[in-house]
Amino acid sequence: MCGLFGVFNHKEASKMIYLGLYSLQHRGQESAGIVTYDGKQAFSERGMGLVSDVFNEEKLNALKGATGIGHTRYSTTGSSVLKNAQPFIIEHAGGFLAVAHNGNLTNTRALRNKLEAEGSIFQTTMDSEIVVHLIVKSKKKNIEDKIADALSQVEGAYSFLFLTENELIAARDPRGFKPLGLAKCHGGYALASETSAFDITQAEYIREVEPGEIVVINKNGIRSLNPFPEIRHAFCIFEYIYFAKPDSNIYGENVYLARKALGRQLARELPAKADMVLPIPDSGNYAALGYAEESKIPFEIGIIRNHYVGRTFIQPLQKMRDFSVKLKLNPTRQLIRNKDIIVVEDSIVRGTTSRSRMRTLREAGARKIHMRVSCPPIKYPCYFGIDFPTRNELVAASNEPNEIAKIIGADSLGYISLEGMLKSMPIKGSEFCTSCFTGKYPVKPPEGTTKSVLEKKQ
Amino acid sequence: MCGLFGVFNHKEASKMIYLGLYSLQHRGQESAGIVTYDGKQAFSERGMGLVSDVFNEEKLNALKGATGIGHTRYSTTGSSVLKNAQPFIIEHAGGFLAVAHNGNLTNTRALRNKLEAEGSIFQTTMDSEIVVHLIVKSKKKNIEDKIADALSQVEGAYSFLFLTENELIAARDPRGFKPLGLAKCHGGYALASETSAFDITQAEYIREVEPGEIVVINKNGIRSLNPFPEIRHAFCIFEYIYFAKPDSNIYGENVYLARKALGRQLARELPAKADMVLPIPDSGNYAALGYAEESKIPFEIGIIRNHYVGRTFIQPLQKMRDFSVKLKLNPTRQLIRNKDIIVVEDSIVRGTTSRSRMRTLREAGARKIHMRVSCPPIKYPCYFGIDFPTRNELVAASNEPNEIAKIIGADSLGYISLEGMLKSMPIKGSEFCTSCFTGKYPVKPPEGTTKSVLEKKQ
Amino acid sequence: MCGLFGVFNHKEASKMIYLGLYSLQHRGQESAGIVTYDGKQAFSERGMGLVSDVFNEEKLNALKGATGIGHTRYSTTGSSVLKNAQPFIIEHAGGFLAVAHNGNLTNTRALRNKLEAEGSIFQTTMDSEIVVHLIVKSKKKNIEDKIADALSQVEGAYSFLFLTENELIAARDPRGFKPLGLAKCHGGYALASETSAFDITQAEYIREVEPGEIVVINKNGIRSLNPFPEIRHAFCIFEYIYFAKPDSNIYGENVYLARKALGRQLARELPAKADMVLPIPDSGNYAALGYAEESKIPFEIGIIRNHYVGRTFIQPLQKMRDFSVKLKLNPTRQLIRNKDIIVVEDSIVRGTTSRSRMRTLREAGARKIHMRVSCPPIKYPCYFGIDFPTRNELVAASNEPNEIAKIIGADSLGYISLEGMLKSMPIKGSEFCTSCFTGKYPVKPPEGTTKSVLEKKQ
Amino acid sequence: MCGLFGVFNHKEASKMIYLGLYSLQHRGQESAGIVTYDGKQAFSERGMGLVSDVFNEEKLNALKGATGIGHTRYSTTGSSVLKNAQPFIIEHAGGFLAVAHNGNLTNTRALRNKLEAEGSIFQTTMDSEIVVHLIVKSKKKNIEDKIADALSQVEGAYSFLFLTENELIAARDPRGFKPLGLAKCHGGYALASETSAFDITQAEYIREVEPGEIVVINKNGIRSLNPFPEIRHAFCIFEYIYFAKPDSNIYGENVYLARKALGRQLARELPAKADMVLPIPDSGNYAALGYAEESKIPFEIGIIRNHYVGRTFIQPLQKMRDFSVKLKLNPTRQLIRNKDIIVVEDSIVRGTTSRSRMRTLREAGARKIHMRVSCPPIKYPCYFGIDFPTRNELVAASNEPNEIAKIIGADSLGYISLEGMLKSMPIKGSEFCTSCFTGKYPVKPPEGTTKSVLEKKQ
Repeated sequence: MCGLFGVFNHKEASKMIYLGLYSLQHRGQESAGIVTYDGKQAFSERGMGLVSDVFNEEKLNALKGATGIGHTRYSTTGSSVLKNAQPFIIEHAGGFLAVAHNGNLTNTRALRNKLEAEGSIFQTTMDSEIVVHLIVKSKKKNIEDKIADALSQVEGAYSFLFLTENELIAARDPRGFKPLGLAKCHGGYALASETSAFDITQAEYIREVEPGEIVVINKNGIRSLNPFPEIRHAFCIFEYIYFAKPDSNIYGENVYLARKALGRQLARELPAKADMVLPIPDSGNYAALGYAEESKIPFEIGIIRNHYVGRTFIQPLQKMRDFSVKLKLNPTRQLIRNKDIIVVEDSIVRGTTSRSRMRTLREAGARKIHMRVSCPPIKYPCYFGIDFPTRNELVAASNEPNEIAKIIGADSLGYISLEGMLKSMPIKGSEFCTSCFTGKYPVKPPEGTTKSVLEKKQ
Repeated sequence: MCGLFGVFNHKEASKMIYLGLYSLQHRGQESAGIVTYDGKQAFSERGMGLVSDVFNEEKLNALKGATGIGHTRYSTTGSSVLKNAQPFIIEHAGGFLAVAHNGNLTNTRALRNKLEAEGSIFQTTMDSEIVVHLIVKSKKKNIEDKIADALSQVEGAYSFLFLTENELIAARDPRGFKPLGLAKCHGGYALASETSAFDITQAEYIREVEPGEIVVINKNGIRSLNPFPEIRHAFCIFEYIYFAKPDSNIYGENVYLARKALGRQLARELPAKADMVLPIPDSGNYAALGYAEESKIPFEIGIIRNHYVGRTFIQPLQKMRDFSVKLKLNPTRQLIRNKDIIVVEDSIVRGTTSRSRMRTLREAGARKIHMRVSCPPIKYPCYFGIDFPTRNELVAASNEPNEIAKIIGADSLGYISLEGMLKSMPIKGSEFCTSCFTGKYPVKPPEGTTKSVLEKKQ
Repeated sequence: MCGLFGVFNHKEASKMIYLGLYSLQHRGQESAGIVTYDGKQAFSERGMGLVSDVFNEEKLNALKGATGIGHTRYSTTGSSVLKNAQPFIIEHAGGFLAVAHNGNLTNTRALRNKLEAEGSIFQTTMDSEIVVHLIVKSKKKNIEDKIADALSQVEGAYSFLFLTENELIAARDPRGFKPLGLAKCHGGYALASETSAFDITQAEYIREVEPGEIVVINKNGIRSLNPFPEIRHAFCIFEYIYFAKPDSNIYGENVYLARKALGRQLARELPAKADMVLPIPDSGNYAALGYAEESKIPFEIGIIRNHYVGRTFIQPLQKMRDFSVKLKLNPTRQLIRNKDIIVVEDSIVRGTTSRSRMRTLREAGARKIHMRVSCPPIKYPCYFGIDFPTRNELVAASNEPNEIAKIIGADSLGYISLEGMLKSMPIKGSEFCTSCFTGKYPVKPPEGTTKSVLEKKQ
Repeated sequence: MCGLFGVFNHKEASKMIYLGLYSLQHRGQESAGIVTYDGKQAFSERGMGLVSDVFNEEKLNALKGATGIGHTRYSTTGSSVLKNAQPFIIEHAGGFLAVAHNGNLTNTRALRNKLEAEGSIFQTTMDSEIVVHLIVKSKKKNIEDKIADALSQVEGAYSFLFLTENELIAARDPRGFKPLGLAKCHGGYALASETSAFDITQAEYIREVEPGEIVVINKNGIRSLNPFPEIRHAFCIFEYIYFAKPDSNIYGENVYLARKALGRQLARELPAKADMVLPIPDSGNYAALGYAEESKIPFEIGIIRNHYVGRTFIQPLQKMRDFSVKLKLNPTRQLIRNKDIIVVEDSIVRGTTSRSRMRTLREAGARKIHMRVSCPPIKYPCYFGIDFPTRNELVAASNEPNEIAKIIGADSLGYISLEGMLKSMPIKGSEFCTSCFTGKYPVKPPEGTTKSVLEKKQ
């Protein structure tokens, strides 16, 4: 996952993009970048870390121009180094091109080999760089046709923003793996991965960029290309389950309401007797609300989040296991002591964090713990942008729910069914990619992984 | 407010203190410090900023010894500069003394004048330094008597931790303004402002340090002094309303449950017809839960907190008012559009933030907004450690609730009553200081403010 | 100018390169970088600033492998930004290639246009990137032939170091603008811009890389190619006058002795009556010694250099003109008061610094000041790597020496003659480029300057 | 050693002090600080490192007021930590006091014990803090009498600058160990350790502050106190030999000329046959010039200083001994190969650096090396501010010159005689402290060293 935000024709473009990226920060915290163009010259600033770390007033003021694109990166291909920060920016015969990418391409190895054989030079290990080469080498005349030509050669998941000297161009893969919304913005246009970025920038949401659509915005207005054949959609359902912000709409529908519906369905499928329903904050909050509403069991925000916890912890005594989980989320002892509780979580990946949480809840005095999960068991890796581990690290790949209950230490454990999940969605179930649950991939997964002599340390 | 954490006889004292401070971070984010003693030598590290900014593994390892004290600072007296970071550490004839202070003394001006007239030198502008001088100048023989002697001369609010070459000493003022708990910790002892710090360090809570008690811990065990005459208690009620973490017990009772009780009482006193109850997260969460429970109106976590928002914002277009409030808390449009809502907030100080929030909720489509506040109108400044502004900045000092409703733009506004609040508390109402609501101060406020030529910039 | 250092087969290659770059720091202080290869993988570290700022022990240890190249940059083409730091490193079909460049190419515009038209993408604004594209696109079989093929297409000044998976390759342009020496180094080989880098790394100097020579070092030993037709040499004479370190040999001869010879010739051509000869330290030291020796006038180091002066100054009172010059070089008042002095400087560019120095010497009490310059008047810009300003900023472009004397405030001013300078050199005069004095360029200067939309800020 | 600079009544006081400290940087590089007063409030900025690291334009602008004092620290007492950075600043009954100290007190242990017994608190481990306590505790009425009272109780070496709300006060100990000059400065006054600081600030030197004099500057003008009995002077002769800048006058006389005189005397006392005289730059430059002048042997600046060498080195191969010496000072091989040379050094302390330099010169090809030292053998530690090591580390404490010649690897070694040195000085020989050569201390050395529990790490 990554976050994209683009602006066309706004007198404070860099600040709009900054705000947009701020509200998309949850989509990628590894690096952030903005590129703008002022009609004569391009300006760029990229850095490792959070949006608030990378930018300051001075840097935003130096990013001149009324048009630009921004990116927050969550690493799936390429190393975590500055040169892999996006937007990626190059100069070629046609001028200047900057690109920001959300998603993961699957046929990069073959494409890269072919390009290198033709004399292409690579500076990064990102799949996005391959697309840039394909665009520049395209024999088509204008930039949108070059982009269509290039994208017709790649497989996988992508939402792209391109910035050229005259256009802001958005493209979404024909299956529509990743969301991308379009809005009016103070007389110009904005594009964003999620609509909460429009809320903060006071942009007015128009519609989604359609799967397979290329949207071209320039001084003459907005135009749409649909160069790819129609194909079955494969919207990432994990965006609704976990990734997107609840105050956002994605694929045209609201995330908060979708999560509550999952919780209600979960309560219908897997009821339990308990004194209270507790979410694992914040991602479990909304399904837990739905579960409590449906089951009529009181809802309590009894696991308290520490808002100051950063990404690194200093390990104290070895025997103090679970301390980092507890530092982040501490149960309210007096609330749950000697109580039977239902804990609602959005998903279980490896199961190790859940095990820590169960122990923490036991130590705080919980009597019976019924865990309920608002997605089906995750059994297969994702090749389209979600950074799940390999199969043998996925606890549900080789264990049944009752075994997982034992592993994590819950008295009972229940997952929503695949059908129940799809039925709860605000969009037709057949529109989604559910390969992490079913192993049925809408696109052939890549063979092996690309090796590079420059990979580890540049 | 500040956070205190002390450890006696733990082989990884500095790491225990670090964890304790981490979970007390909400009590002060201006600076953090730890002082330890290894039997021969003192070690100290202090810095501006968050606990996670000030310390790293290397620094914690350099803080040797099994005993130590830590502090997170929230500035009330003295400037925000490194030298005012605590613990404060000095060398005197009797050896070495470090001190960490939570609270605010009220008779510092007279004491400081007297000490300076006798030739004392001051290096900081903190009231804590005065106490150190009084201790060192005391004619008493041993350190606990010196401390008792010094504290008998000061007025106001304090919980203190003192570290000497042989003892860890805690002291709480006779009115008990500020909380301070005692625990067993892996064979030694720990002291903390709130019990959530014991949860994370796996310390076992024993009891509160009593108002007016001095607790002396050394290799011979733990001893208690009660050198001060009995006096009416004045526990800070704002700790229950807003300041303490909900997963903590303070003054012996749980904060989460106290806040829910406030919410239930608020619902009884000030009912409203609405489609849902929304908290202002996170501080309004618990009273909102109580309100929803009592009123049977559905509870929704519909205002979404952005967890990446730091303390500085870059101002975009001037006309984009409320953007920083919105960046922090964005309403879920599709949830509240065309709905009547009850918004529960813990308190209103200046009213400016509330006004921004009301506007944001209107823009998101809310129809009617009924605001409910789980404490009475704040009309008077606090001299004991809470950093309220001056009277003329307190919106409730000169406006009635219905006027404030107009100012902030709510359709109705209701505050819990003083009696209702006190009745909801888990402790007898007469034990509390309620001077911010009533103006009846349990200790005479200081006359004027202490001026220092060194104050602003040192 | 830039500094180059390469090592082949040394178990601590990164540290050798670090030391070599340290002693070449005067050749470029804008950025520094090292790339090494350990037989399987490439390692790289580059940063803005001095060698000592960019590298530390940890970073050097991470640069594994027995072969590598390093670079200190002095910006002539491309912006002063991190991505323009060298060595430049890429991945292509044949594997990996790193390049470090000293000098300036003159036909880059045409080459870049051609490459872009063929679909090449540029990431930097450095002329070195063009050479890399030409190498990768060459149809030749092995890397040294590809390099020869690429270099046969470029014009201008270059000494190059190339690092591949199997070879360390050095190349010097057919005119030999820039120096490059070859040495044995603890069983392997080293290459450096100046021999003082061999002194510090305890490498044994063998010989210069010849103009037009390509030296290929691999596990089979060392080989030499001479693919270019013979052409008149054009060694940069400014290396002897100012740029190289006096303890270095360049083009096979010592710099210190060459500068003393210039001073002696200067004394013969332009004698003066005075009490003492003073150098402008440190660059004027050696010519001043020669002048004093020839003229028998006492030599004094009377202008004292402040070794702590960095690159930025804080401007005090406006009326305190010359303060930055004085802060750097303060005359010893009691030595020069009421004395007639000869001041020896290596060169005058704009004249502004000289004017400040004259004023400072007057204020310190000097009676008569005779300025002597150990190179002829600089009247023309350099297109081969020295960063002189444009013609209209060169004071000697439009003023005769006697006019310049008035401008800078000297009682007399004399420049060495072109013939005198050439005669003093340890190498035949016809071997040198003297175009900054004569305007006769050995290679056609570039037309205009290359424009890039990415140039100013990336 | 430390550097002092004070300004009274200058509209840009902080910038004047900054420039003054810049030119006194050689007197202490551990920390730097400035305190100013604007008539109402004090401003202060201190930091570890060089003047250029500690200050920037913004910080200097924040140091408001027309009066102030500055300090560069070279640690002799107290640890190298920020709190020991000077000026030291306190608040007391009489108001505000800042102090900057150059020198070393010798009876601090007894004074500190006495003060602590009376209830004084110490925050630092600097001897300067003791003086502040003595001032504040003095029963005298006005500040200059308090200062005189305090200074009458201390023994040892000091030049002090004091800043109060109304005065800038300077004091020099009765023996006059350390220099301190007075100047007019743009309508106000300036005080500085060396006159080169007046050159750069364009202040006009008036005279030295006399030994035992207290100079009081306030709005009524300048006044002088001489409260101490006359006593034999003990000017530090090492200031002339090594410490002060050659462009400075100290004790009223020029350093450059004094060093040349030492060199001439050295040539008379210890002639040698050689091809050239080489200084160890820069401190040996001036004596070498004198030696060459007297001996008529050519002077060469043949050992080249690398101006980029910082304080830390990264150790390459163990067998590469002397590399850090060589990195700093590289001999010009072609100049000295097969030559007999005289090397002039200002002093030898441990002898280890000299040994490295001799080896480096041999490797560069020198045939015979005659070392000449422009001070007598250093045999005793200094208790008054020069940081010599203990006796058993001083090579001359237990070895005769001919033995030292063998140890360091010189063909001959000669030191100037005590008498010859004193005779060369511009001031009567009996005015100097020569205890590092003779062991005859003008003040009783301190017994043992003060221990502090806070010493190592605060």
